[in-house]
Amino acid sequence: MTALPLAAGREKIGFAGLDAFFHPRAIAVIGASPQKLTIGHRILENLAAYGFPGPVYPVHPTAGAVNGLRAYRTLREIDGPVDLAHIIVKSAMVLDQLEECAHKSVAAVIVNTSGFREVGSEGEERERRLAERARELGIRVFGPNCQGVISTDPACPLYSNFTFARVRPGVVSIVAQGGGVGEVVNNELQERGVGLRMYASNGNACDVSVPEILEYFGADDGARVIVLHVESIPDPRRLLEVARAVTRRKPVLALKSGTTREGAKAVASHTGGLLEEDATADLVFEAAGIVRVRSTRELCDAASALSRQPAARGRRLAVLTNAGSPAICATDEAVNRGLSLPEPSAGTKAELRASLFATASLHNPVDMMATATAREYGAAIRALLGDPGYDALLVSFITPFFVDCEAVAREIVAASAGARIPVVANVMASPEREEVVRILEAAGIPSFYHPEAAAGAAAALSRAGEMMRRTDEPGRVELSRVDESGGRAAVESALARGGGWLDPAEAFALASSYGIPVPEWGSAATPEEAAAEAERIGFPVVLKAVARDLVHRSDEDAVVLDLRDRSNVLAAAADLLDRFARRSPSLVVQKQAPAGTEVLVGAAAVANLGHTVAFGLGGILVEAVNDVVFGLAPMASQDAERMIGSIRGARLLEAGRGKPGADRAALVDLLLRVSRLVTDNPRIRELDLNPVIARPAGEATMAVDVRARVEAR
Amino acid sequence: MTALPLAAGREKIGFAGLDAFFHPRAIAVIGASPQKLTIGHRILENLAAYGFPGPVYPVHPTAGAVNGLRAYRTLREIDGPVDLAHIIVKSAMVLDQLEECAHKSVAAVIVNTSGFREVGSEGEERERRLAERARELGIRVFGPNCQGVISTDPACPLYSNFTFARVRPGVVSIVAQGGGVGEVVNNELQERGVGLRMYASNGNACDVSVPEILEYFGADDGARVIVLHVESIPDPRRLLEVARAVTRRKPVLALKSGTTREGAKAVASHTGGLLEEDATADLVFEAAGIVRVRSTRELCDAASALSRQPAARGRRLAVLTNAGSPAICATDEAVNRGLSLPEPSAGTKAELRASLFATASLHNPVDMMATATAREYGAAIRALLGDPGYDALLVSFITPFFVDCEAVAREIVAASAGARIPVVANVMASPEREEVVRILEAAGIPSFYHPEAAAGAAAALSRAGEMMRRTDEPGRVELSRVDESGGRAAVESALARGGGWLDPAEAFALASSYGIPVPEWGSAATPEEAAAEAERIGFPVVLKAVARDLVHRSDEDAVVLDLRDRSNVLAAAADLLDRFARRSPSLVVQKQAPAGTEVLVGAAAVANLGHTVAFGLGGILVEAVNDVVFGLAPMASQDAERMIGSIRGARLLEAGRGKPGADRAALVDLLLRVSRLVTDNPRIRELDLNPVIARPAGEATMAVDVRARVEAR
Repeated sequence: MTALPLAAGREKIGFAGLDAFFHPRAIAVIGASPQKLTIGHRILENLAAYGFPGPVYPVHPTAGAVNGLRAYRTLREIDGPVDLAHIIVKSAMVLDQLEECAHKSVAAVIVNTSGFREVGSEGEERERRLAERARELGIRVFGPNCQGVISTDPACPLYSNFTFARVRPGVVSIVAQGGGVGEVVNNELQERGVGLRMYASNGNACDVSVPEILEYFGADDGARVIVLHVESIPDPRRLLEVARAVTRRKPVLALKSGTTREGAKAVASHTGGLLEEDATADLVFEAAGIVRVRSTRELCDAASALSRQPAARGRRLAVLTNAGSPAICATDEAVNRGLSLPEPSAGTKAELRASLFATASLHNPVDMMATATAREYGAAIRALLGDPGYDALLVSFITPFFVDCEAVAREIVAASAGARIPVVANVMASPEREEVVRILEAAGIPSFYHPEAAAGAAAALSRAGEMMRRTDEPGRVELSRVDESGGRAAVESALARGGGWLDPAEAFALASSYGIPVPEWGSAATPEEAAAEAERIGFPVVLKAVARDLVHRSDEDAVVLDLRDRSNVLAAAADLLDRFARRSPSLVVQKQAPAGTEVLVGAAAVANLGHTVAFGLGGILVEAVNDVVFGLAPMASQDAERMIGSIRGARLLEAGRGKPGADRAALVDLLLRVSRLVTDNPRIRELDLNPVIARPAGEATMAVDVRARVEAR
Repeated sequence: MTALPLAAGREKIGFAGLDAFFHPRAIAVIGASPQKLTIGHRILENLAAYGFPGPVYPVHPTAGAVNGLRAYRTLREIDGPVDLAHIIVKSAMVLDQLEECAHKSVAAVIVNTSGFREVGSEGEERERRLAERARELGIRVFGPNCQGVISTDPACPLYSNFTFARVRPGVVSIVAQGGGVGEVVNNELQERGVGLRMYASNGNACDVSVPEILEYFGADDGARVIVLHVESIPDPRRLLEVARAVTRRKPVLALKSGTTREGAKAVASHTGGLLEEDATADLVFEAAGIVRVRSTRELCDAASALSRQPAARGRRLAVLTNAGSPAICATDEAVNRGLSLPEPSAGTKAELRASLFATASLHNPVDMMATATAREYGAAIRALLGDPGYDALLVSFITPFFVDCEAVAREIVAASAGARIPVVANVMASPEREEVVRILEAAGIPSFYHPEAAAGAAAALSRAGEMMRRTDEPGRVELSRVDESGGRAAVESALARGGGWLDPAEAFALASSYGIPVPEWGSAATPEEAAAEAERIGFPVVLKAVARDLVHRSDEDAVVLDLRDRSNVLAAAADLLDRFARRSPSLVVQKQAPAGTEVLVGAAAVANLGHTVAFGLGGILVEAVNDVVFGLAPMASQDAERMIGSIRGARLLEAGRGKPGADRAALVDLLLRVSRLVTDNPRIRELDLNPVIARPAGEATMAVDVRARVEAR
């Protein structure tokens, strides 16, 4: 077979985004099989069962027909245009079929065949060639080693996938890196009656990526909620950029698995990828406005709620119940997930008191007791929905045998109609609940059996609302006293000698060029020079030995503190030069900073993302307890504020016990400068300001030690 | 009505434990009602439907018959004996009916009626009188404001409860303080086909308590698993003692709600109890061997697994799957819950390699790929069950359309038969799974839809095994140099003046009497005396001002460190006496301890329990990050070891970076002495040794400040 010149691809019609996958005019199945229980048969069955409106062409070398459709020996024999082709032939034959697709001007292929990157180096090479050739030919590829796509868009219903789930149209779109997890979630949502808009599982993702699918689903007005499963994030920067735009318009829920070391090892083994750290996923999701969930169950609960109810405008939850104990389980879960349960307003309490039994509890949860009927439910729901102090309502109902439960259900629906805030239900516990659930769900009120599930769903509604409302678009923060060229020079001089750790003088220069306050300092080669520098700077001073391989200076006793006069400096300098003599040392002399609260500020490069920025308490004792939080560069002021406020020991920075607090504005400024420094200088792999001595406002907060490492690539 | 003298109660037959509730010969329903949809009718229906074998007597003032049974106007009219009576009359009438029960020699009553402690002070008084009178009459009371009991014991099937759940016999017994949560759990377990042994929800629990029911279920051989729901733990010591014995024989799973402040407030409002701290519940459950779960869903998952599978002998989980991504979700969850996933042994890998496809991944999870059939499942399960490196097996199966799924299910059952370790299954995702689940469940293999649920169940099996195997019966630890009478004298002298904080001299004396090392010290009233004491003790010394209301000495600058000569002491003493002159100060002089790692050891009294013991890093910086762990006195050495090892900053106590580690044995000894001190002296409300200076072995680890507070009651 001769490879086709690139030009032939141009005969295809122009598809926007991934339209060739989700709105093809005609589909070919290369590797169609007359044998039932094969992928090459199942896809034809699925396309037929879900009523794909265009022609479907089985391609098979010998069979005249497959699944009642005329079969073609080759793609070329097909008369009309083909926009999308499944390739289900052996992995070694996939590339040939790709060339055939190019001849036929196929715009998009779904390579279901496995045996690529996931099976080791030979498969990896095969996948690399597939992706490269597809790019040359201008063909977009889903997979290889993937399920494919599903769409319930009435304009083009399409089940181009070999799984089996009974889907019905809905507003949730699913993109799942893991096909198994995709099936678990899709099937459960269908069983809950939630419905599906589009589904994509792109397996090894050699071409079409998860962010690209997310972007496509984001632009699809038929999708109101997007559910995402990922195991690795090969291009976090792209995911971040895409999701940031999508999540302002609609909620994106994500489950990232491989969060433990063992799970990440299994991901690497399962996908043929590299071992990835989970640590940055939270930062990416947070910055992207993605609501992260922790299990498939939680994912389904949240998707179920968001598909029927609006996101909440805040975190204030009202809980209404006819049974105390399940409402308490819901309360615990809601609070653990960041919701608050404020008391009803005085007016609302008066309304409730007028409508409910005298024994009802008018706090939050509002407990109407088991005898509450439709009348009480209706009155209480109306009262709570009318209270501007709430952002969401959780209606808890345990079906008592002595109450007309269906009447209660109908009244919950009636009273919630047109509510300005979302409503979720927790319906328990007897078999009699089933009809209640049916009535509520039919009216779009998501109903959960477990109190914690309902509370978790309410929390997801609130979190999604926060994400959609957020305004923290990180832009270029204006900072005075930034000398970009000075910073670049420091980095380039280190790169010029092959990279690695900057020496202290370079590191101080780097920090200073970005306006990061450091103590006055100077270099010296001899004790005499050190003493002269000390006298220039003013006592007390700190003396540090400097050598290429001397990084952990404190551990190696290469730092002498609190030198108060010339003779001390001479003696300490001579001692340092003597002790490290074999390592050709020089010296740095710096002004000793006054005491203060020690914190640390750092940055680290993350592949394909940029840098994370760290903030924590400093000093050896506190480092041992690891009180450090992270953010993503570039940061805005509020990111820095949030980080400083969210360490466990945050109160050490506050005023109290007769002491002034640390200068928060100075710390925010310092974090922003570090963020800017590493963003401007991507070759910096690590930057550590540790300790930074935090001082009260009006006094200089400064970094008394700066370490930095650069790498050419 | 005349109150019956106590003697009449003696005509009852002697029931052991709660047998009168669970094995009554005859039952009366006082407040039986001919009206359907009332509690007084429903209980009669339930008793009839579940075939209670003895006579049931409706008591109703006018109806001749209720639910097809002859009704009696009063209890006295009944001819035969009555062992158990429901009381469903208005709350104001309950006491009268209790007297009637005494006349009839009724042994046990279930007061379903509400309107007691949960409705405020009037109800509280009514409940107090009910409990008191029942005690006088020798009648045991369930409730008031409760559901009642259920039993499926074939010797006496009994549905003495107004809820409705379709129960069938099983091995799980449920005791639920919250009736609603009890229903949620019971109903779900029944829907999962797990079955019930006994059920009890005792509402306000004015007499029969949760620990008493737990003890009864513990002694019942028909119960293999006990499920517990509590909202408050009014008598934690009793729960601890009872559970400690039960959990060696069978697993006890507990959900404690009201864990958040908001939840606890709702509990107080709902039960009419006091606001309780959740903090000690973990300690009580841990010490009692109870497996704590965090939600109703997790409770049902764990109960479902433990009812069919043995507890695991360790934490090493093997995961076998035909789909990568769900197994990774299971791996994450398992690891997060403390399980490990070791690699298969070389021999096991060889076996797996011989049986599975070449593309299978032979790590853990073992991923056989989607094409695995019954043959591969069988071979792999046999190989993994034969590997002594595993304590539990999780079989994950996503039902592919091209595999004979029922054959796989049958093979999972066959290969797991007689396994020496527990097996749980995760069966996903198409509707075709239902038959697979049916086959597995029928064979006693608990099957879960969500990967995380299966992993959570495996973790519960492991945790239950740990609890059943534990040997840490805390006894009286032998400690040398304990002068109990000296300790008692210090406490009593403080109590004699009305309690409150001990002064530093008393506190040092208290600690010393239990062999807790403190620095050499002395008291002084004047600068001259202080100087003399300092010279006796040896420099450097620390000087502290002492006054009744001076507790937070560091905050008030009432401590002067590092006094190196007589003149320093004179000056510092004069200054302290001057600054605190209005508070009639005296002085304590103590030897300044050498530097070391600062830790804190403390103890606090908990109502009806004893004392908790705290251990953490000391010093103001570290206290701010709150790196403190707790234990329960009296403690054994391994408790102290565990505490010291489980602070976040534990590595600060270890040797490293050229420094010797802290003397662990000395810290363990110190914790045990504190535990013994507070156990011997229950009037101590708080004891704080902060800081304790931890030093390397061979040097004195000592408490340089000791604060203690005592209260008469």
